[in-house]
Amino acid sequence: MELKAIGVIQSPFHEKADCPIQPLYSQDAAGTVEVFPEYAEGLKDLDMFSHIYLLYGFDRAGEVKLVRPTFLDDAPHGVFSSRHPARPNRIGLSIVHLVRLHGAILDVEGIDILDGSQLFDIKPYIPRFDRIEQATEGWVDKLEWRPKPPGRE
Amino acid sequence: MELKAIGVIQSPFHEKADCPIQPLYSQDAAGTVEVFPEYAEGLKDLDMFSHIYLLYGFDRAGEVKLVRPTFLDDAPHGVFSSRHPARPNRIGLSIVHLVRLHGAILDVEGIDILDGSQLFDIKPYIPRFDRIEQATEGWVDKLEWRPKPPGRE
Repeated sequence: MELKAIGVIQSPFHEKADCPIQPLYSQDAAGTVEVFPEYAEGLKDLDMFSHIYLLYGFDRAGEVKLVRPTFLDDAPHGVFSSRHPARPNRIGLSIVHLVRLHGAILDVEGIDILDGSQLFDIKPYIPRFDRIEQATEGWVDKLEWRPKPPGRE
Repeated sequence: MELKAIGVIQSPFHEKADCPIQPLYSQDAAGTVEVFPEYAEGLKDLDMFSHIYLLYGFDRAGEVKLVRPTFLDDAPHGVFSSRHPARPNRIGLSIVHLVRLHGAILDVEGIDILDGSQLFDIKPYIPRFDRIEQATEGWVDKLEWRPKPPGRE
């Protein structure tokens, strides 16, 4: 399936090394999402939601390895049990706080996306569907945030 | 960006009209996800998580309309403020319960996906990243589940 960009994401993160690994670790980081004019009508009522999913391209991710250490942990994990950007299909998924919608520009906070990334979709975060109370933390359980290990792709 | 299938999803839902609108409304619906052998190694440690995201193709969605009534509500909403399948980029996102991983087959529950859909990615649902306590419900607030209105695409 061929994806076409419906917009572009601006963020303070220009280099992979600077980019937070998840929005949780960048809650103050502000960015903008510019939706192309031909799709603007599809944003109707989006500002009724406080949080949204962004689906976007990991266009600067490195080589795909099916098993690798992650940013959070030195133990190797399968790529599908991590959120690492170098994946067979390079689609990123981030939940960001929608601060303001003006025209076809979204001001967002809690962004963990590289500047200039292609936007493919926006979906509303709907707590009754998306907040899974009984979900377990997997291997992330008990791990604490740490800076990205130097040189780790 | 070109996506390639990394697997295929089997579910009890063969027709759009039978397919639940969200996993919340099909918690007992069981399905399987078959990951193609060349990607199987990437599943390492996935079974440490109780819930996972599936990203897949909405290959049988109808005509894209940027504003339309939804299954939950007769008021028209923008496509990006709904989870309707007929979207500019037809990527579906569902959170399902991972019951068992055997080889490259995932047994899942709470599936709302049409049988035979192409799988593009699996990501772990990680509560510390994905369970947003302060998120609001937008226009879905106070709406109750209802059957899909007949004839509505």
